[in-house]
Amino acid sequence: MVQKPAPDSTRRSEKSRRAIYDAALALVGEVGYTKTTIEGIAARAGVGKQTIYRWWPSKAEVLLEAFLDLSEQFAEAAAPEEQAEYGIPDTGDLAADLKNVLRLTVDELLDPRFEAPSRALTAEGVVNEQFGAQVIARLLEPQLQLYVRRLEAAQETGEVRPDIDPRIALELFVAPLAQRWIQRTGPITYAYTDTLVDYALGGLAPR
Amino acid sequence: MVQKPAPDSTRRSEKSRRAIYDAALALVGEVGYTKTTIEGIAARAGVGKQTIYRWWPSKAEVLLEAFLDLSEQFAEAAAPEEQAEYGIPDTGDLAADLKNVLRLTVDELLDPRFEAPSRALTAEGVVNEQFGAQVIARLLEPQLQLYVRRLEAAQETGEVRPDIDPRIALELFVAPLAQRWIQRTGPITYAYTDTLVDYALGGLAPR
Repeated sequence: MVQKPAPDSTRRSEKSRRAIYDAALALVGEVGYTKTTIEGIAARAGVGKQTIYRWWPSKAEVLLEAFLDLSEQFAEAAAPEEQAEYGIPDTGDLAADLKNVLRLTVDELLDPRFEAPSRALTAEGVVNEQFGAQVIARLLEPQLQLYVRRLEAAQETGEVRPDIDPRIALELFVAPLAQRWIQRTGPITYAYTDTLVDYALGGLAPR
Repeated sequence: MVQKPAPDSTRRSEKSRRAIYDAALALVGEVGYTKTTIEGIAARAGVGKQTIYRWWPSKAEVLLEAFLDLSEQFAEAAAPEEQAEYGIPDTGDLAADLKNVLRLTVDELLDPRFEAPSRALTAEGVVNEQFGAQVIARLLEPQLQLYVRRLEAAQETGEVRPDIDPRIALELFVAPLAQRWIQRTGPITYAYTDTLVDYALGGLAPR
């Protein structure tokens, strides 16, 4: 990807920001959310802690933005920029589109760079309600809304029943994958997520 | 429920065991898994720590058994003994049976006695793989196997397609409820779990 040239000060800031994100994600993965501090992030990133406080009001903000940035890197690596920006592709074949995006999610969940910080943030969100609400509002729910829009489009073309609530419907294939990842209740494979999509669209009862 | 009379020594042990379970669940809910210690549990329960070590090899074992015991209390309070023992009732109406058992789960998840210790154990299981594996093997998977058996029975009567894998199928209605509870991604109500069952059995696509 071709980068536009940036003025020196912007390049310096961008380099510090990247170092701070990397340090924050590495630390939270290694020692957990509670033991990660602004001082520790600053020391590891090789910046003064005032540099961090100038940009972010709290540890939670740094970590959330570092993680958002990591997710964006995955999305950009996996798909053209337009797709990452505008959501789940609509080829007119709902099952195929859902299977494709869930396969990308499988790749992300199994990537070692993602695993440790993501587990640490998820665990903190389970016990710390305020932090959990931020994780959901800024990381998870925006992704779920992409499924809502794709299911609404499928309702217009008749691939999904009109009486279905898309916000609940998406949980039939998103939540099982999330639970297998969060609680390690079973293997995560493309065959598994493909099956979830087939079961959710077709239903368990005979047709 | 009528209890059989117990000899004095059994009654004393039972009373200590109950005090230890209560102390363990209270502590883990208040200070988290990491800061809960055998010493702390013993002090709060009013027993010597050797009493705890005589019965359980580690903190993890105490907590898992305390939580198993709590779950059994919920099951016994909610349903006749036979039902709690033998699994999900089979009235011949799969949708009704699944909705009923999920409504009982909703009651349990929203009960304050359950909430704090359960969140603490779940959070620890997310970051501590070994402990998480025990939570799954001893608490969660045995419950999921009850759904497997009920779905297999439904395959025999033709209510579920024969090519469906019951272990994956159950996740379509169990995992969404679990994720809403673990990550607080949405409200947990009877109407919600009823809807999950209807969507999973009927499918999202038109019939």
